[in-house]
Amino acid sequence: MPTIIPIEDPEDPRIAAYRDVRERDLVGRDGQFIAEGAVVVRSLVEAERHRALSLLIADKRVEALAPLLAKLPEGTPVYTAGQAVLDRIVGFALHRGILALGEKAPMPSVADLLAGTGARARVVMLFGIGNHDNLGGIFRNAAAFGADGVILDSGCCDPLYRKAIRVSVGATLLVPTARLEAGEDPLALLDRAGFQAVALSPAGAEPLSALAPPPRAALLFGSEGPGLPPALLAGSRTVRIPMTGSFDSLNVATTSGIVLHHFAADPEQSR
Amino acid sequence: MPTIIPIEDPEDPRIAAYRDVRERDLVGRDGQFIAEGAVVVRSLVEAERHRALSLLIADKRVEALAPLLAKLPEGTPVYTAGQAVLDRIVGFALHRGILALGEKAPMPSVADLLAGTGARARVVMLFGIGNHDNLGGIFRNAAAFGADGVILDSGCCDPLYRKAIRVSVGATLLVPTARLEAGEDPLALLDRAGFQAVALSPAGAEPLSALAPPPRAALLFGSEGPGLPPALLAGSRTVRIPMTGSFDSLNVATTSGIVLHHFAADPEQSR
Repeated sequence: MPTIIPIEDPEDPRIAAYRDVRERDLVGRDGQFIAEGAVVVRSLVEAERHRALSLLIADKRVEALAPLLAKLPEGTPVYTAGQAVLDRIVGFALHRGILALGEKAPMPSVADLLAGTGARARVVMLFGIGNHDNLGGIFRNAAAFGADGVILDSGCCDPLYRKAIRVSVGATLLVPTARLEAGEDPLALLDRAGFQAVALSPAGAEPLSALAPPPRAALLFGSEGPGLPPALLAGSRTVRIPMTGSFDSLNVATTSGIVLHHFAADPEQSR
Repeated sequence: MPTIIPIEDPEDPRIAAYRDVRERDLVGRDGQFIAEGAVVVRSLVEAERHRALSLLIADKRVEALAPLLAKLPEGTPVYTAGQAVLDRIVGFALHRGILALGEKAPMPSVADLLAGTGARARVVMLFGIGNHDNLGGIFRNAAAFGADGVILDSGCCDPLYRKAIRVSVGATLLVPTARLEAGEDPLALLDRAGFQAVALSPAGAEPLSALAPPPRAALLFGSEGPGLPPALLAGSRTVRIPMTGSFDSLNVATTSGIVLHHFAADPEQSR
């Protein structure tokens, strides 16, 4: 059971980590993160990957959130406050009425993530996705279609940034994630782990609908403007999503949904 | 050729329509709308559906935008201003440096939109999509996959709201759009026009991948929470997108992309 601690003073040092959430988002939280909203906080607590250090909730929501609070490890502080104090703490109107402070779990290496997958596996590999909406949307799709992991290059933004978590509806807390280290060759890592690299590009050689998904596939996506680096395209099987001539741009999160849906072979089984 | 008119004073009455853009967005513009960014303004000008009443651009961008400006009808006012004046006019830092004031063209009736399509046609029909990001994303997908039109119920937000236009990358200015009138029966209208109604629902009877697209199809989407009304589901062919058990929610714009991709039969031809 958690420990309920009422907070009356927005300056209370015990809730310092929740103060001025937006400004803090910008400077970063050094191994910690903020999760927002009941659905997302439930993912954080139930997944047990990252640790919920504490919660801050509107006192009027304590009763409704009791089942969630009961799942917290013994002694986890749950700070409660009236809506006015809450809004002053976080610096905006916190309609969702629930925040959690999380401690990031260490990420596995890319090699370990790949090695931990089964005989049939799909991982998503992202290059230069710097927009939290897009990153969150891709994770949401990865979770929806049961991808085994998401691998990020150094140009991708933080999947545990508050907005990315929220847009992903908590999926960034659930889907196994790894980040390429400087000097790691993504195609060599995939090849060694028996994954076929399938790269999405408007100039891809095959239309997606004609592609028979290989048993172990890595789906490579770049950002909307520059796309994937030529070296990655040259070393991958390239696939395109045909579009009408006059308008040839899809959002990268939507693209990932289309591709993951196509790769979710034998869909009836995964239902 | 347009008429270039330098503006020095943010209070100049000639650019009143551009003042405090965000606040104005909230009260509505009564038959007018603001389009933002070069790509979007180009769609507005080239599509010639809605009328560009005037442009407001950063003076440093006049040269780069000359090809676009040359396409404006004779005499269209193009107001120019330095970045500081521009930012004071609109009320925020206008990085994109280009706005247009548009006049909404009248919408066709739903019956006329449907009647104007060919033997093979896809229209998107939306119910209760009140979020501008989602609406814009759906229009973007509709344009990318060559849908013949988007039909909105009264619960959908305005596709010509600035943010919806921007998220759609201008597609809301391009894709034929109609809105259901009070008392109109969407299924009866579709039936009369020879369209098969295909409704997306997590509890749909058929998986999407098993569906052979009919020649004339209307693709029905509801909002993420409530979904489509039971009466519409009962009168439609219902389709689901199978997902993994633990996480069963897709964003509605992503869903529309997946469905439109599936329905873009014979994709090679439309490329």
